[in-house]
Amino acid sequence: MAEEHVEFRVITPKVQQALLAQQTRLRDRARLLISCPDRPGIVAAVSQFLYQQGANIVQSDQHSTDPSSGLFFMRIEFELPNLGAHWDELTGRFAEVARTFQMTWRFNRAHVPKRMAVFVSKEEHCLLELLWQWQSGDLYADLVMVVSNHPDAGATVAPLGIPFYHIPVTPETKKDAEAKQLALLASHKVDLVVLARYMQILSGDFVRQYPNRIINIHHSFLPAFIGRNPYARAYQRGVKLIGATAHYVTEDLDEGPIIEQDVQRVDHRDEVEDLKRIGRQIERTVLVRAVKWHLEDRILTYNNRTIVFR
Amino acid sequence: MAEEHVEFRVITPKVQQALLAQQTRLRDRARLLISCPDRPGIVAAVSQFLYQQGANIVQSDQHSTDPSSGLFFMRIEFELPNLGAHWDELTGRFAEVARTFQMTWRFNRAHVPKRMAVFVSKEEHCLLELLWQWQSGDLYADLVMVVSNHPDAGATVAPLGIPFYHIPVTPETKKDAEAKQLALLASHKVDLVVLARYMQILSGDFVRQYPNRIINIHHSFLPAFIGRNPYARAYQRGVKLIGATAHYVTEDLDEGPIIEQDVQRVDHRDEVEDLKRIGRQIERTVLVRAVKWHLEDRILTYNNRTIVFR
Amino acid sequence: MAEEHVEFRVITPKVQQALLAQQTRLRDRARLLISCPDRPGIVAAVSQFLYQQGANIVQSDQHSTDPSSGLFFMRIEFELPNLGAHWDELTGRFAEVARTFQMTWRFNRAHVPKRMAVFVSKEEHCLLELLWQWQSGDLYADLVMVVSNHPDAGATVAPLGIPFYHIPVTPETKKDAEAKQLALLASHKVDLVVLARYMQILSGDFVRQYPNRIINIHHSFLPAFIGRNPYARAYQRGVKLIGATAHYVTEDLDEGPIIEQDVQRVDHRDEVEDLKRIGRQIERTVLVRAVKWHLEDRILTYNNRTIVFR
Amino acid sequence: MAEEHVEFRVITPKVQQALLAQQTRLRDRARLLISCPDRPGIVAAVSQFLYQQGANIVQSDQHSTDPSSGLFFMRIEFELPNLGAHWDELTGRFAEVARTFQMTWRFNRAHVPKRMAVFVSKEEHCLLELLWQWQSGDLYADLVMVVSNHPDAGATVAPLGIPFYHIPVTPETKKDAEAKQLALLASHKVDLVVLARYMQILSGDFVRQYPNRIINIHHSFLPAFIGRNPYARAYQRGVKLIGATAHYVTEDLDEGPIIEQDVQRVDHRDEVEDLKRIGRQIERTVLVRAVKWHLEDRILTYNNRTIVFR
Repeated sequence: MAEEHVEFRVITPKVQQALLAQQTRLRDRARLLISCPDRPGIVAAVSQFLYQQGANIVQSDQHSTDPSSGLFFMRIEFELPNLGAHWDELTGRFAEVARTFQMTWRFNRAHVPKRMAVFVSKEEHCLLELLWQWQSGDLYADLVMVVSNHPDAGATVAPLGIPFYHIPVTPETKKDAEAKQLALLASHKVDLVVLARYMQILSGDFVRQYPNRIINIHHSFLPAFIGRNPYARAYQRGVKLIGATAHYVTEDLDEGPIIEQDVQRVDHRDEVEDLKRIGRQIERTVLVRAVKWHLEDRILTYNNRTIVFR
Repeated sequence: MAEEHVEFRVITPKVQQALLAQQTRLRDRARLLISCPDRPGIVAAVSQFLYQQGANIVQSDQHSTDPSSGLFFMRIEFELPNLGAHWDELTGRFAEVARTFQMTWRFNRAHVPKRMAVFVSKEEHCLLELLWQWQSGDLYADLVMVVSNHPDAGATVAPLGIPFYHIPVTPETKKDAEAKQLALLASHKVDLVVLARYMQILSGDFVRQYPNRIINIHHSFLPAFIGRNPYARAYQRGVKLIGATAHYVTEDLDEGPIIEQDVQRVDHRDEVEDLKRIGRQIERTVLVRAVKWHLEDRILTYNNRTIVFR
Repeated sequence: MAEEHVEFRVITPKVQQALLAQQTRLRDRARLLISCPDRPGIVAAVSQFLYQQGANIVQSDQHSTDPSSGLFFMRIEFELPNLGAHWDELTGRFAEVARTFQMTWRFNRAHVPKRMAVFVSKEEHCLLELLWQWQSGDLYADLVMVVSNHPDAGATVAPLGIPFYHIPVTPETKKDAEAKQLALLASHKVDLVVLARYMQILSGDFVRQYPNRIINIHHSFLPAFIGRNPYARAYQRGVKLIGATAHYVTEDLDEGPIIEQDVQRVDHRDEVEDLKRIGRQIERTVLVRAVKWHLEDRILTYNNRTIVFR
Repeated sequence: MAEEHVEFRVITPKVQQALLAQQTRLRDRARLLISCPDRPGIVAAVSQFLYQQGANIVQSDQHSTDPSSGLFFMRIEFELPNLGAHWDELTGRFAEVARTFQMTWRFNRAHVPKRMAVFVSKEEHCLLELLWQWQSGDLYADLVMVVSNHPDAGATVAPLGIPFYHIPVTPETKKDAEAKQLALLASHKVDLVVLARYMQILSGDFVRQYPNRIINIHHSFLPAFIGRNPYARAYQRGVKLIGATAHYVTEDLDEGPIIEQDVQRVDHRDEVEDLKRIGRQIERTVLVRAVKWHLEDRILTYNNRTIVFR
């Protein structure tokens, strides 16, 4: 049975209070995510099942891919009074429905915050935005740690009571550093790693341990300007819009499933430094949207693409 | 039983061909629209019903209002092989489900094009955009007539074989003119009236005969600049964005349910004439989106608001 | 002669360093703003004058209104080596040119930060964004005080060493409160007052003392939803975009010259609380842009409109 | 001396009238475009010169590149009564100013419409938008011919009296086809070639004859998806925004100076065909903006980048 109550490691009583209020509000709410081959009767079977369990569907979204691939995806958010007491039965019984339709599926209780780690380097704008939205209650998560290869961000997170780990990375120490990071993630049971302008490339070994659970913000409109120095290259190419891309991290650099993108207009007066300044606004907006959707179980992936049920 | 085949009154063989191809593609497709009090079991009952009839749900969207009003809205698009033969049975049997849940509901066959009339005055940009999207197959409708209080647009629609009716309107003749218009709409069984910058205000009598079936484009971002000369007033006020609004027409001028809005940036260099020019682009885009959604049965209304299931 | 050096009241050494670096960079830079009746020869006279003084024009923008009003506006940003030593001569000699063309004009040295006061109530998102952009060096100003009718924001600004004044306001004490505020603004020689969601209406007496020097953020797309509760009213009306407006404050509530506006798309799923959440992002973005343009002397006003030379 | 009057080859009297009205309005207006090494005194010298000639500056824009490249660009639009009579003297005398500052420069009379050729393949949406904006008077040009490798567009342009040339292109005949095209362009003294979804790649020989005078619309947000089938590749990559790019054509495919770009949001429901449909709207908007700016002499290029003085 899922945990009924979670303590948040926050010192500000105001924030603690906001998160706990939300926890209470979400206590009887859950989300069901389904992927399976498309065929008639899925919606009927699933909604019939939930109705019989006493659940009230709050939001329901579905997507069928084109007939050639023939896949079906669904996200249902529902309320069930006294959900905690019914949880094991609910999820246990669903297994049969799932078997009939060859579903990949998961239930998530909405009030259980995902355990989130944020990785950051020197630039803090994305971290600050995450902290802000988290403090205002818009990002419902347990922010269990901030990790950085530089000591700078320590001063930012300390007042909030969030554990900060400074793990320097050099070409020589990268392997050890990743081992330390992975040990931390494991010991804190981290669900989601957010690379908030963490300027290091994670090894394939690292990435494979967190499939679709590492979100990166890339400071360009992918697939334009993959790799280093996208703003300098955007300037060089003379583009009239610059952008940012939030994506799940895969072993191929900047090639993972795109979750969200946005752009802003620039013109000939904007030098590289201006592009960076404008870009920072896009990066933080785009990253927070992607993290929010992940925390709310709104994202499914297939064929290196995302389905985002907003 | 719904008509199985519709002739389009178009002379261009290319356009005729495009619309007929789409008609064939949509032959077995239908949409079900539901409004009812919210309560558990609706989705289960509806999807179970459709499954039993042999229908495959292609797209499904639902919306519950806040608990205080407690309303539920749903749009389901489905395929059913040999739909024409099953139509009467399908719709007849659904009545029982509908009764149980006190539904307001309607089934629409997707291949039956709505019969659309376009009203226009002197400015033709909205008419042109509608004609264009219609010719390219993006607006699936039977364009049965264009009505204008000026003769100018006749030359535009004549080559397309669309009947054009020039009905002048003066304060004295307005009542007669509306009678003529209503007679035309009735005799051609018009489903949707699009006011594509038709600069006359329709009487309450007229409007009441086509509830939620008259779409107007207002050349401002409502509720800003209700009424006459919105661009001149936008200039006067010094706004930094101008907009357009497509809405269903009700008896209160510019107060009907908003379907779609959009804006464009302007600045101090833009005189009233520039605002008009920029505005024309917004108007035509916004109007066409609203008309398209209506034609695809994507819009439900309540409390003077629209739900658009995109 | 303008001050050659300004101390910033910041405790973070990093921020202090960033602002001082920018001060150094801007030491020899100035801006000239001109309004006058339009006629031939103005640009020639002004650019000739600056050239003779040894100035190099870095950016130049001009705007002529329509012939009926016949006004001319200009903003020139220039570099002049050892500007401090030439300042009095430069500005003194320009008076003659100005007289010829009946100019309203002012020179501003770019390295002299404007003295800014921020007024705030309980919601801190606009204040936070201002602080952030200011700390990152994007807003070049001397943030001399934060004033609030609630004590809450004190905890936010204290760590940055910015003086915080809690001045409660009730209908009975409003007059006294404004007197205290005005005394503070006067004693600190404040140049710009930013109302960062300060939910009190300033009296005409207050406003008249700071013409075009008080910037307010209104949480709607003006002139839609003037006054109280714009989000609730936007929800009620069923708009498809919500917006925010930064404007100079005049005696007529929400009627002052608009500096900047922006919007975001919403849909039928968004309740009033969602509109507020989405709106907060628009408000802080729009307000910061307006403040930045003001700080960089990019805004001129006439006829209750703004000219923004970006 | 520049031509005082130009006949437009249009049969619609309404359009002819609109263009002639604009010609009259622009008779005394000219634009001066300058590129030169940056140094003090340029603006003073140029504006002094124009003042002495009796010109009134209507719009003036300038841009200095970063100090390392040290380039200066300027566009001045001015009115001079009885311009035709002063033209030779004006342009002749300016040569001396230009020499002093090592300027590359040109004067253009605004009332002389550029002679424009449009190249198109089968898809007509960009052609239609150009024709429309041209007919409404928003694109001031002499549309001297439409060229296509398919016969289809002939029916579209014929009613407007625009000469249509069907020149088929196969790998074998490409060289001959280009020779024919170049002969047509030369004999009609074409100033601007617009590739409005002309799906053929022009040879380097062709391109070199019209430097910065061929505008192409590429159906992606460059530099993403250079080359063939950008929408299919955008779908494959799962991007959340799709775009279009208007650029001057150089010998390197899709690598020329970017004039304008824009994007639209898409999501997981959009198949390749939807991307194409949405993309068509972006393409036509972006292309028309770029063409309009070119026709109004608003674009300067350097280092494979554009400066657009809007």
